[in-house]
Amino acid sequence: MKFKAIVIACGLALTATALAEDTGIPFPEGYRSWFHHRSTVNMTGHQPESNVGIQHVYANAAAVEGLRSGTFADGATFVVDRFKYEDAGNSSLSQGSRKVIAMMVRNAAKYPETGGWGFEAFKGGDPNQRVVKDGGKACFACHIPHADNNYLFSRNDKP
Amino acid sequence: MKFKAIVIACGLALTATALAEDTGIPFPEGYRSWFHHRSTVNMTGHQPESNVGIQHVYANAAAVEGLRSGTFADGATFVVDRFKYEDAGNSSLSQGSRKVIAMMVRNAAKYPETGGWGFEAFKGGDPNQRVVKDGGKACFACHIPHADNNYLFSRNDKP
Repeated sequence: MKFKAIVIACGLALTATALAEDTGIPFPEGYRSWFHHRSTVNMTGHQPESNVGIQHVYANAAAVEGLRSGTFADGATFVVDRFKYEDAGNSSLSQGSRKVIAMMVRNAAKYPETGGWGFEAFKGGDPNQRVVKDGGKACFACHIPHADNNYLFSRNDKP
Repeated sequence: MKFKAIVIACGLALTATALAEDTGIPFPEGYRSWFHHRSTVNMTGHQPESNVGIQHVYANAAAVEGLRSGTFADGATFVVDRFKYEDAGNSSLSQGSRKVIAMMVRNAAKYPETGGWGFEAFKGGDPNQRVVKDGGKACFACHIPHADNNYLFSRNDKP
């Protein structure tokens, strides 16, 4: 019984790996020391539901420069680090477990179908759990309304 | 009338300055590039009410080292950067205007009455609007229950 369970678990893992295509975007090593740009709280009721949580936006040096200048050079990278939130008492929400590390990487020539940004995401922050399956089109769909802002949700908030 | 209003405004400013004692703790220049440790959301209903908002904790290099080792050297400094939150639609809360920049500065010999931490806060992030009036005792009161954790709210979250 235990053996069967392990086989099924392995099968699921292989299936998940097969479904996710490798975007070639490397895991953002060291992003926790990047510039913290801002945070957003997606409360219960937010759509898509999978994005509910406290999320922090980190920007690498090129992305900080882009936020200042309004133009993003290839290599500019944002990380959205999303956590479940937990009731900490006294009407406070604290960070719980990590849900996902999502990324936007600028490369105008490489990603023409998604606004010049490549999208990737790592479930639970695990470098081996890539979850973007469609070249980032589903991610990009929510960014399209922000085409006038380099497809970024953050506005009027220069570092 | 305009002159009278200016005189009254100046009087209020002088009064505010007179009420707040100067803790000698300098404004934390450059803190926005420090390590972002974590964030908390104090929802409506949180006490004290003035602390309602989205708040980010930043740590300088000595404070990061202290979080890792469990011992804080003099000079270790935390900044709590607190913002009003605003309804951004789609059940999301975004950062609004800055409410305060609050600080904890480690100096074991200088601040024996407040756990070895000095407290200061700058209203609206204005270096000229110091708001700590009592040597930090009111701030410290909420930290006393965390004496076993160096008087820090953050637990189990090493950088």
